[in-house]
Amino acid sequence: MKSYRKELWFEIPSRRGFVNITPEVGRCLAESGVQEGMLLVNAMHITASVFINDDESGLHEDYKRWLEKLAPFDPSPETYHHNRSGEDNGDAHLKRQVMGREVVVAVTDGRLDFGPWEQIFYGEFDGKRPKRVLIKIIGE
Amino acid sequence: MKSYRKELWFEIPSRRGFVNITPEVGRCLAESGVQEGMLLVNAMHITASVFINDDESGLHEDYKRWLEKLAPFDPSPETYHHNRSGEDNGDAHLKRQVMGREVVVAVTDGRLDFGPWEQIFYGEFDGKRPKRVLIKIIGE
Amino acid sequence: MKSYRKELWFEIPSRRGFVNITPEVGRCLAESGVQEGMLLVNAMHITASVFINDDESGLHEDYKRWLEKLAPFDPSPETYHHNRSGEDNGDAHLKRQVMGREVVVAVTDGRLDFGPWEQIFYGEFDGKRPKRVLIKIIGE
Repeated sequence: MKSYRKELWFEIPSRRGFVNITPEVGRCLAESGVQEGMLLVNAMHITASVFINDDESGLHEDYKRWLEKLAPFDPSPETYHHNRSGEDNGDAHLKRQVMGREVVVAVTDGRLDFGPWEQIFYGEFDGKRPKRVLIKIIGE
Repeated sequence: MKSYRKELWFEIPSRRGFVNITPEVGRCLAESGVQEGMLLVNAMHITASVFINDDESGLHEDYKRWLEKLAPFDPSPETYHHNRSGEDNGDAHLKRQVMGREVVVAVTDGRLDFGPWEQIFYGEFDGKRPKRVLIKIIGE
Repeated sequence: MKSYRKELWFEIPSRRGFVNITPEVGRCLAESGVQEGMLLVNAMHITASVFINDDESGLHEDYKRWLEKLAPFDPSPETYHHNRSGEDNGDAHLKRQVMGREVVVAVTDGRLDFGPWEQIFYGEFDGKRPKRVLIKIIGE
């Protein structure tokens, strides 16, 4: 069994943002030499997500507006108890649960085994600081 | 290490629907010959889900009503920017995030290692067209 | 390839609650002897979650209040069709979808390969009864 590990670093200049990381993940897979196996991509931070969906800017705008409705940003410690700890990112911990922490992708013939529109995104909900994504691949 | 791959095809006759795919997934596992390992089942399309829950029709009705409340269908490009691209399925991309893209299931003694009520479902949010689910199994 | 399996049992004394299971999962990983691989932790019941986030009591209070807003407890079979079956836990099946069934964690050098704040939680949404979590580890 082969195994491979790599970290990707991000510093998103705004509070919220989505970055298509499919090309980087594909390069990691090539580097790993794994032909058949599974690939895990996860946010290493708890106010960020990794998810798979469409690379379409209108959709990303919809996600941002929708998440803001489901879990609005509010620094007040009355709205989010988490903010009593001196943080202002209570909303970001909730948004991340909707979008998810991780994706697991099948590796077949050395490729990301994807449907026609699947792309991997890093989702940031509390940016302006350095954060990491972990890629782990196991297989043969 | 053994690895196995299969696609399941669906064409749901309505816009939304849930299909219990546990028997098909079980047949794939038997075919793979894997006794110990992990099994990934994921939607290959970005307006569909694979999830694990109860096979109870009342619950499925509840999921449909709840998702409609969280992310209502609306073809208007004002409600969902994604619909400016000529699509009318902006809502389906949001619903899919709540229900999830994939499940990973433990394989033990050649069986899906499940609790008493766990069943695997394909969840369609923009049907009436052919779509695929991927099953990937690795192990020994 | 090595594989390892263990069940953890819980009986949460209240309807809803979160338990940090990171230490138990870490002990299982040590017991498995796996140095490089993947670790799956999933709820074996369909009204419970396993998720990764921060071990901060204010945040957990926020999750509870937020989930109650997204999918309020209501034993009425009018509100949740699932409750026509004699259950009163329709809301719990919805809450579990938001928080997720499972997490997959990279194993590197025999450790849970985590970012600085990542902790694994069991999330109960219909407690006062015995329930299980499954830990499956594969690798070398």
